[in-house]
Amino acid sequence: MKLIRFGEAGKEKTGVQLEDGTRLDVSAFGQEYDENFFGNEGIAKLQKWMASHQGDCPKISGDVRLGPPSVRPSKLVCVGLNYAKHAAESGMDIPEEPVLFFKATSAIVGPNDDVIIPKGSVKTDWEVELAVVIGKKASYVSEADAMDHVAGYVLHNDYSEREFQLERSGQWVKGKSCDTFAPLGPFIATKDEIKDPHNLDLWLTLNGETMQNSNTSDFVFDIPKQVSYISQFMTLLPGDIISTGTPFGVGLGLKPQKYLKAGDVVELGIEGLGTSKQTAKAYG
Amino acid sequence: MKLIRFGEAGKEKTGVQLEDGTRLDVSAFGQEYDENFFGNEGIAKLQKWMASHQGDCPKISGDVRLGPPSVRPSKLVCVGLNYAKHAAESGMDIPEEPVLFFKATSAIVGPNDDVIIPKGSVKTDWEVELAVVIGKKASYVSEADAMDHVAGYVLHNDYSEREFQLERSGQWVKGKSCDTFAPLGPFIATKDEIKDPHNLDLWLTLNGETMQNSNTSDFVFDIPKQVSYISQFMTLLPGDIISTGTPFGVGLGLKPQKYLKAGDVVELGIEGLGTSKQTAKAYG
Repeated sequence: MKLIRFGEAGKEKTGVQLEDGTRLDVSAFGQEYDENFFGNEGIAKLQKWMASHQGDCPKISGDVRLGPPSVRPSKLVCVGLNYAKHAAESGMDIPEEPVLFFKATSAIVGPNDDVIIPKGSVKTDWEVELAVVIGKKASYVSEADAMDHVAGYVLHNDYSEREFQLERSGQWVKGKSCDTFAPLGPFIATKDEIKDPHNLDLWLTLNGETMQNSNTSDFVFDIPKQVSYISQFMTLLPGDIISTGTPFGVGLGLKPQKYLKAGDVVELGIEGLGTSKQTAKAYG
Repeated sequence: MKLIRFGEAGKEKTGVQLEDGTRLDVSAFGQEYDENFFGNEGIAKLQKWMASHQGDCPKISGDVRLGPPSVRPSKLVCVGLNYAKHAAESGMDIPEEPVLFFKATSAIVGPNDDVIIPKGSVKTDWEVELAVVIGKKASYVSEADAMDHVAGYVLHNDYSEREFQLERSGQWVKGKSCDTFAPLGPFIATKDEIKDPHNLDLWLTLNGETMQNSNTSDFVFDIPKQVSYISQFMTLLPGDIISTGTPFGVGLGLKPQKYLKAGDVVELGIEGLGTSKQTAKAYG
């Protein structure tokens, strides 16, 4: 199943995208895609509800805005330097164990919303990433059990202001958390939809030119390892999002470096997870 | 006004602590202490409601558990190295601009709940901190306007696993986010209760022995600077918490270093913000 949310920012309704691309309003199901939904068999219940109510669900018009496909989670955990070639372009070693950082959940927006270049930013960069949605509370889970805690997957652009991240007195969160820096979607694909999350093509273009083009088979640490590892340091709650790192091809790694300016168009996609598109706007 | 939440973990009810220490159940007011409450004049509305309903509010018995005094916020932002002498004991320079990091909000617990030493931890440390509660959305606010965005203050113990934080492949969040690592409370003091947040004694004892004893007048960056600065990098939402850094006297800075073991008792307090007490337990 493909979960979507649609409508005006902050007032989104829940929907489902069918195999043929039709989008249905399922707000009559009566539950938001939130911690309670993911943690209490919401996906299975919605699937069951759909079986008898699908015919009554209104179709969503094609031009409606898509919101982030779940409600703001408790946390958005990112794994850094998880593709070997990207670590090299960032001038960093492949880590011996996963590097973790957070993005503020206030950065989350819909998949096709504008990305706002923050005030004073000269180094706003892109990062296509496969993100994992947690379906069951995870604390000290083993790698063997980790996939039981995954509800699904979603496309994420982990926008990063490199000066804020790397040159402004420590800790990456400063360059990762600006408003609009976490477009999520178009949809959350439930786990059953993605046969092998470790063999998905992912790509990103800037104004039509390919910047990133890789495959999740190049992960340094796979998804069971990431979920298990993070759960040794904190409890992952249902709906929490893990962004699994970006491949080679970010602006920081180019010679000369290249960063976003107003009017630039960023498009990205992952096999089975759809595509998204953001236009860069200056703040204000 | 002093806002409290009380009762079983996860099922807390709202309360108010009066000047004489009496604690009243104000759940009949009908609103949780959450983003909506702080962002929509909830404090003023509750104050008004109290004026006519105080006599009807049940007293809370003295032995009831206190929970964290607000609902899980969107984020818990911490300012690192904000007391000069603490930066020195950590072997770090005084930063030229505030160092920011996040704690997972899943780490938040009540003020007197046990602190759980994580599996494999050998360096669990304490940090008494003054925390600020945001009352109004803050994005690109000036220092002059920053205090308009503050709702109140709360005592925080920013527990930190130093090995996870500093020796485990980058980014402090790993050592800051374990469950129970953010006891908040006993209460949120609304802004009007604290005449000068930049002149408050704060202290922490370990098994009765004073470890930290300082005053917020020793801040490197004051509260308006912190709020304004953070708001340049991300939007602070009502209910969000900023922890303003810890003074000299953490276990990491002692020679030899000293860390928590099961059975240790940590007590802490800030002038006007009450005290809290955690007993260290081993995980499991």
